[in-house]
Amino acid sequence: MKFSQLFIRTLREVPADALVPSHRLMFRAGMIRKLANGLFAYLPLGLRSFRKVEAIIREEMNAIGTLEIKAPVVIPGELWKESGRWDSIGEELLRVKNRLGIDLVVSPTAEEAFSALVRDELSSYRQLPLVLYQINTKYRDEIRPRYGFMRSREFTMKDAYSFHSDDASLDETYQAMGKAYRRIFSRCGLSVIPVRADSGIMGGSGSEEFMVESTIGDNTLLLCRACNYAANVEKAACTPEPIVKFSPVPALEPVRTPNVKTIDELCAFLGIGAKNFIKTLIYRAVNAELADAKEFFAVCIRGDLSVNETKLAAFLKAQEVMLADDADVLRLTGSPVGFVGPVGLSGLVVIADNSVADTCDLVTGALEKDLHFRHVVYGRDWTAWQIADLRTVKAGDHCPLCGGELYEKKGNELGHIFKLGYKYTKSMQISCLDEEGQAHTPIMGSYGIGLDRTLASIIEEHHDEAGIIWPLSVAPYHAAIVPIKYDGAVKNAADELTLALEKHGIEVLLDDRSERPGVKFNDADLIGIPFRIIVGDKNLPLFEMKRRDEKESRLIGLDEAVQELREATSRL
Amino acid sequence: MKFSQLFIRTLREVPADALVPSHRLMFRAGMIRKLANGLFAYLPLGLRSFRKVEAIIREEMNAIGTLEIKAPVVIPGELWKESGRWDSIGEELLRVKNRLGIDLVVSPTAEEAFSALVRDELSSYRQLPLVLYQINTKYRDEIRPRYGFMRSREFTMKDAYSFHSDDASLDETYQAMGKAYRRIFSRCGLSVIPVRADSGIMGGSGSEEFMVESTIGDNTLLLCRACNYAANVEKAACTPEPIVKFSPVPALEPVRTPNVKTIDELCAFLGIGAKNFIKTLIYRAVNAELADAKEFFAVCIRGDLSVNETKLAAFLKAQEVMLADDADVLRLTGSPVGFVGPVGLSGLVVIADNSVADTCDLVTGALEKDLHFRHVVYGRDWTAWQIADLRTVKAGDHCPLCGGELYEKKGNELGHIFKLGYKYTKSMQISCLDEEGQAHTPIMGSYGIGLDRTLASIIEEHHDEAGIIWPLSVAPYHAAIVPIKYDGAVKNAADELTLALEKHGIEVLLDDRSERPGVKFNDADLIGIPFRIIVGDKNLPLFEMKRRDEKESRLIGLDEAVQELREATSRL
Repeated sequence: MKFSQLFIRTLREVPADALVPSHRLMFRAGMIRKLANGLFAYLPLGLRSFRKVEAIIREEMNAIGTLEIKAPVVIPGELWKESGRWDSIGEELLRVKNRLGIDLVVSPTAEEAFSALVRDELSSYRQLPLVLYQINTKYRDEIRPRYGFMRSREFTMKDAYSFHSDDASLDETYQAMGKAYRRIFSRCGLSVIPVRADSGIMGGSGSEEFMVESTIGDNTLLLCRACNYAANVEKAACTPEPIVKFSPVPALEPVRTPNVKTIDELCAFLGIGAKNFIKTLIYRAVNAELADAKEFFAVCIRGDLSVNETKLAAFLKAQEVMLADDADVLRLTGSPVGFVGPVGLSGLVVIADNSVADTCDLVTGALEKDLHFRHVVYGRDWTAWQIADLRTVKAGDHCPLCGGELYEKKGNELGHIFKLGYKYTKSMQISCLDEEGQAHTPIMGSYGIGLDRTLASIIEEHHDEAGIIWPLSVAPYHAAIVPIKYDGAVKNAADELTLALEKHGIEVLLDDRSERPGVKFNDADLIGIPFRIIVGDKNLPLFEMKRRDEKESRLIGLDEAVQELREATSRL
Repeated sequence: MKFSQLFIRTLREVPADALVPSHRLMFRAGMIRKLANGLFAYLPLGLRSFRKVEAIIREEMNAIGTLEIKAPVVIPGELWKESGRWDSIGEELLRVKNRLGIDLVVSPTAEEAFSALVRDELSSYRQLPLVLYQINTKYRDEIRPRYGFMRSREFTMKDAYSFHSDDASLDETYQAMGKAYRRIFSRCGLSVIPVRADSGIMGGSGSEEFMVESTIGDNTLLLCRACNYAANVEKAACTPEPIVKFSPVPALEPVRTPNVKTIDELCAFLGIGAKNFIKTLIYRAVNAELADAKEFFAVCIRGDLSVNETKLAAFLKAQEVMLADDADVLRLTGSPVGFVGPVGLSGLVVIADNSVADTCDLVTGALEKDLHFRHVVYGRDWTAWQIADLRTVKAGDHCPLCGGELYEKKGNELGHIFKLGYKYTKSMQISCLDEEGQAHTPIMGSYGIGLDRTLASIIEEHHDEAGIIWPLSVAPYHAAIVPIKYDGAVKNAADELTLALEKHGIEVLLDDRSERPGVKFNDADLIGIPFRIIVGDKNLPLFEMKRRDEKESRLIGLDEAVQELREATSRL
């Protein structure tokens, strides 16, 4: 392909809203353009890399026997009402009424569409397992689209859904998907971090997110240097620190703490660290599924730690937990906020985090204004109804698997596989006959990858000051041929080399423009084609070959160049 | 691929709303399923054929240097307001307001999106011509979706748009597209009829529609048996019949025609044919572009013919023409409806169709109740301001090119190429600098193909009572291997044959189900795989080979089967 024919316009300027390298470089290299906030178009160069990511995903899905189908992008709202998501998803669901007053949805995901299709086709357990996927347009009405294709409104997603007779079969597909996802990201040149994560609005349990490190990541990850442990902060666990035991601990002792309001002030006043304090928080837990049942709980945790409300909600099987307001705290404990403690607390179920449960010597509120207890010992002075892992894990905490020190990273989710359970198969009444001829509800899994975000993440991981450094597998072209001047003997040599490479299926971008060599070199670096071959009259019949990630070029003959590129591309 | 793994459920029943063979067969063969009115999903088998049509289109577009891009499906309404189509297109445009109150459109076509992209990239005439395409999802809110993918709400379209410095360059691309379209349809096994057509809501002139014959076609086509002439009835022309001249014609003579109201009654009364009568119709023409200018015209045409209002509107450069009401006729002509004629008519511009212009001996209304004239001669007794081709051409009329007899067919449009002119480039203010450094507005072309409708049309043209008869180029699989019983030696032979064929890239559907042979044969016929190879123990090591369109099978060895299929597929 000749550069002049490709409708590429590389740019020196960067749009003001392009805050991350992938957005800047996709824009500057002429890969994408913006039509409106969160709505982007792929230009020819960008589309080539997009299609390569698409092809890798399709190959790996087909390789594990997943069947490709294609559902409409516009879905009847009726199906979303059946599943309950018409009400449970907020404004990010783009709803439309058509001319006949029929509710439609521009799909953000396709659980409903696939469930509806399978419902009509499924009669016997013998048809299971059924694993279907599509690669299709999605729309999510992001309130603040940002970072180019990293968080756009319209995007392309590979979404797969599986239907099974039993958990074992679901698990088999789930494991196969996990392996396929690892191969997909590895073929794309991406270092992904597979983490267990809260499955958010999708519902269900048993899920793995495939994250890439990103300074603009939506997620905080806790990672272990020593082993493979990786978790989203929402679910991360840790090994509790050993409790320092004192023996014997002096008897419980009230201590006046006038005008002491915060933990910091208390620590200064008593000459102790926050680690020596039991913080007691009153939470209201809501369970909307049970006719809005709500209940209050007291949660005790070490003074230097914070309660992970996602973990607390999961532990309480609540939909949501929130701190009680001051009036409720006073009513329920008889104590103003700041002086609540577990000693002598009655009428409230007490849950203790691992960090404060076990015998030790701590300080806590004494349920009375300006009064605390010291020498508090668990089991002697107070007990909890349950002990659990409720803390928000942070860098420096210890890995729950190996005890190694955890560190934090921001991450962006590229893919998500998870066991959906019966959420859709029950609400949408999917059933088939089992071996005994009884009606049986299948169990379901769901597996997504964002294509555009994957492409952008490849650039985030593979670029330098000058531009993109494409992995060969997803590069728009394998080789850039840059004639110093596209004329005379140099032109002939460049054409001959192009032809020789293309004959072997190597994708060549020939820079036939009448630009200065410096401009052409800069554009080649910006666009990031993996192999650059300079054709100049000084070196003919030899060429200057350089990989995009190499510093120095080397002289090479035509046959050698063909040989090197054939070898490199044959490994794809 | 094994049949049991393909999620195919063939059906004997036909859904009540499946009125045409393609809809019935795509449904029965398990190619598509309906999610809602006008919203269909492709199942694995259907998607394979869909992808083959897509690949053929992509190859032919790339072959003529058209560049693939990908615009979003959801487009800012703002762009449609710029082009004016926000107002001019009615309810079939699906409009959405997003959570921020921004107007969006689910694209039915992409003139606006492509124009906006090009507008921002274009600076110099040297970038022209620019020919871009996409293969993408479209939505049109059909009020009455019917016939499956033949008229669905959501569909996939290849749409290309070109931008040029001048008419000659546009014409070059237009011609290249015309040839590419012929290759595309020919490779899909379709007999298309390229016709010149009114370009409808798209605007502009110079257009060619690619039609397939269809009993449910939206369009009436006039075709010539003798030459290649083909036209949509809206634009079809014909050679006027030679006027029968009488010499000398008696003088104009009034004749009383009491209680004669219709042409039929008049003919009976006077003992003449409708061909001997001049029908005079009063039309109101509206030109909304000129502040709703309107004007009345008298149109004279032979009594057995009807006025083609599309042709009349085009001739008058009007947006719309409609028959005047009785009161207007009386006011303008002084005569009641039924007695209007051109002789003595004043105060109205008279347009005559070719059929009544020239000297002859005819009958016409005398502008007075119950009175006609006979022996009317053009030039002697009346004249028109203009003579034009205004008739609705019908079967039996004569070809305007060769004079051969025309016949009619109903047709469905699969593709449309046309010269858009400056409609979008002007309204959306696209401009670049020309050779003299002056601002220049490019001229534009537009080229679409409906993929789903193309696929459905292939089935319409290639099927029989038993099912689909796929052309090899778009068949979901090349060969169906049907073991009489998938067991023992037969299984081994079927597996061996499958492997041998797949080794050469031949796509095989192996029916591994434990169904009766009759069921398997019926399904193979229904699905319509081009080559069927029956494996039964009686004939081993030979197989029964039959093409789907052959009546009789023949015995064939493994090597021979491989050879035959390699030859057939190598020609694709």
